[in-house]
Amino acid sequence: MLIAEPLQKAIDELSKLPSIGRKTAQRLAIHILKNDQQNVDALVKSLIDLKEKIRFCQECFNISEEEICDVCKSTKRDRSIICVVEDASDVIAIEKTNEYNGLYHVLGGVLNPLAGITVDSLKIKELLSRLKNDEVKEIILAMNPDSEGDTTSLYLIKLLKDLPIKVSRIARGLPIGGDLEFADSATIGRAFIGRISL
Amino acid sequence: MLIAEPLQKAIDELSKLPSIGRKTAQRLAIHILKNDQQNVDALVKSLIDLKEKIRFCQECFNISEEEICDVCKSTKRDRSIICVVEDASDVIAIEKTNEYNGLYHVLGGVLNPLAGITVDSLKIKELLSRLKNDEVKEIILAMNPDSEGDTTSLYLIKLLKDLPIKVSRIARGLPIGGDLEFADSATIGRAFIGRISL
Repeated sequence: MLIAEPLQKAIDELSKLPSIGRKTAQRLAIHILKNDQQNVDALVKSLIDLKEKIRFCQECFNISEEEICDVCKSTKRDRSIICVVEDASDVIAIEKTNEYNGLYHVLGGVLNPLAGITVDSLKIKELLSRLKNDEVKEIILAMNPDSEGDTTSLYLIKLLKDLPIKVSRIARGLPIGGDLEFADSATIGRAFIGRISL
Repeated sequence: MLIAEPLQKAIDELSKLPSIGRKTAQRLAIHILKNDQQNVDALVKSLIDLKEKIRFCQECFNISEEEICDVCKSTKRDRSIICVVEDASDVIAIEKTNEYNGLYHVLGGVLNPLAGITVDSLKIKELLSRLKNDEVKEIILAMNPDSEGDTTSLYLIKLLKDLPIKVSRIARGLPIGGDLEFADSATIGRAFIGRISL
């Protein structure tokens, strides 16, 4: 007996999602199958709405319900600082900290030539055009601390070095609440290099 | 800044799925948002079709595209044996082993009074009515090897003991505390061969 075709199809589609393997996809599909129609309708509607109602801010490429996102529209944000991030989910993570009050710029990925992600695939020229008026005084690079993130940071540092703009990168070190004993040596090394005078 | 409402809604709905936490849900939602419209359409269509086209076999309550499932309709299956399982995913797992050629009966869960799953919530009286003609000679119990599975097995053994039917349980080749759905085919196959009379 083969798996019924609509079930197989749903498993195939679900397993295309990131971090969902075939067994998880099968479990999800069977859960959906057994679930009440109204719950499934709510799930499906939320996915359709997600795709239909959300667009990307024309200014910073953050997710938005309108042409310009809430951050870019806000009069309370410091318009002299732009934090450059990889992804919209990074904006959500940073906003949750309540530590940052500037604007954002979402690159839409990081440089990774092997995966076909080059300078042209990212919103880099859009970032440069935002710097044309003299409003922006500082760029904070907040890419993930991995090799692609570092490559992208280095590329942007080189690109921005002739402009009269301060460029900084968010600190690397021990995670708050973490344990020095269990931190990896690369992290401890970075924490030493990035030590601050007190 | 709050997360845009359609995104928040999609995260909420996705995180209702089993084994999907809030962070995974956020990651999935942002993946869907960035994905091509046609891929998202395919996913959504597969979920709608899953719910619309799949029903439950009127005979054994396995998932099926028609009123009676392929296993129950087949003339090549041994109609004298019924394997009782918890869930449709268990049928898929057992079919993959190619060790079993009888029929199935999907209970739709296991006894778990604390979670409100009682005898009446399961397809137990439907199982009994399948035994009314003399065709069935053996019942194989193939519940998960955990306490709810054992409770359900014991309940069924007691229920069936006065009927002229051999009752067996698949061998504990399955690791205790494991989940039938996630066991490898070889292990499930061995468990079938080594089933013990009760």
